[in-house]
Amino acid sequence: MRNITLYIQYDGTNYKGWQIQTNYRHLTIQGVLQEAIFKLTGHYSKVIAAGRTDAGVHAISQVVSFKTTSTLDSRTIQRALNAMLPYDIRIQDIIEKDIDFHPRYDAKSKKYSYLISNSYLASPFLARYTWNISYNLDIEAMMVSLKCLIGKHDFSSFRGSGCGAKTTLRTIYSISLENFDKIDFMTFPLEGNFLKISIEADGFLRHMVRNIVGTTVEIGRKRLLPEDMQRILYSIDRRLAGMTAPARGLYLEKIDY
Amino acid sequence: MRNITLYIQYDGTNYKGWQIQTNYRHLTIQGVLQEAIFKLTGHYSKVIAAGRTDAGVHAISQVVSFKTTSTLDSRTIQRALNAMLPYDIRIQDIIEKDIDFHPRYDAKSKKYSYLISNSYLASPFLARYTWNISYNLDIEAMMVSLKCLIGKHDFSSFRGSGCGAKTTLRTIYSISLENFDKIDFMTFPLEGNFLKISIEADGFLRHMVRNIVGTTVEIGRKRLLPEDMQRILYSIDRRLAGMTAPARGLYLEKIDY
Repeated sequence: MRNITLYIQYDGTNYKGWQIQTNYRHLTIQGVLQEAIFKLTGHYSKVIAAGRTDAGVHAISQVVSFKTTSTLDSRTIQRALNAMLPYDIRIQDIIEKDIDFHPRYDAKSKKYSYLISNSYLASPFLARYTWNISYNLDIEAMMVSLKCLIGKHDFSSFRGSGCGAKTTLRTIYSISLENFDKIDFMTFPLEGNFLKISIEADGFLRHMVRNIVGTTVEIGRKRLLPEDMQRILYSIDRRLAGMTAPARGLYLEKIDY
Repeated sequence: MRNITLYIQYDGTNYKGWQIQTNYRHLTIQGVLQEAIFKLTGHYSKVIAAGRTDAGVHAISQVVSFKTTSTLDSRTIQRALNAMLPYDIRIQDIIEKDIDFHPRYDAKSKKYSYLISNSYLASPFLARYTWNISYNLDIEAMMVSLKCLIGKHDFSSFRGSGCGAKTTLRTIYSISLENFDKIDFMTFPLEGNFLKISIEADGFLRHMVRNIVGTTVEIGRKRLLPEDMQRILYSIDRRLAGMTAPARGLYLEKIDY
């Protein structure tokens, strides 16, 4: 038995997320991958992901693995699967790992980034890939608010419903907010005001990044104060946090082992 | 009567091109715009474009105009139309022009750019926006081949079928081929090998850019020699040129008046 690990990239727009669902088998990344693997190897393999991304969330570098008795060499598996996969899911790299390797449990840290386009006028090329916010945002206040999240905390206040995590303790190693006055789209500069919030942690609760982003945007809009972030974090009460930011601005960027 | 000119941007992936078609009214950029204008003003206006882009072709800056008796101020028209338009078509700017202004006839020059991703492995984020070519391309040969096209020529050899132009003479002012080893997608660097071919001319025949790109790619693959470009140009024979490059890599970038 071999443990094949894939580094995959996907545009999540057309999918109902990572996790296979009975009625939407072919609309989930996991379902589509498992079907391609079944066609290639002739046997069913469960594919496990480092990050179980929600519907509409993108992956710059997702790590997934599956077990197989296939004797095909890795490059052949990669080529054959890519030939069967739709264009919005691509296997960028393939590595054979130790049989005990688990992409989620063995991850030391995961990094998610969230992109906001803060413009009155959004470019059509950003519609699938950013959250467009037309009102003014106080970026200084947002930066200040995010700092208190660094470290080990109970992140219950930012946990989405349906989260099955056993513990709500997570450690955020770093959090950053970058500001750009243009984004290059396919080498074409799109002017505007763009924010990129990146969070690296040992793990994330369901909707945690999107709820943190939604809350810091409330602070940016001055509906909440920068110090409210800490108050909300300590409250352990989901009802106090801001809205869940839309999935389309979220990217699973990197997994470290 | 007023002549309202719109600077629009669109992701052409989901459309059957600029020009309205009887059975695909709502799947054309012109059809969608005309419907929004009808809803806003209560009267039918024909919208004229600087470049009649084909199905799947994108626009970074397309210029279109329509006549109306509406007394709404320009910003209100822009806001109202954007609110009605789908997210993949956006009005970036609006200007009221002289009643005689014609976006196509009055254009001094138009610039189209074409993007090729020359990698064995394409990123899913590029699938809608580039032509992915997995075989090796001789970029030097492609650069050399394009030079002979500069100037005033009969471009019949690169004219697509169904082109209704009265004259096949066009003047190419400049043509460039740039090479990149990465493209930023939403600030995330995607590594690979990318080519951008940009052509500025007083006008273009139908499929002219895509046929030139298809021909230079044949030269890059060494199926044709660099000097074959001039031979094909002078032959005035469409059958000698290469394939029509796919629409998804083509961008209407700029119109100058």
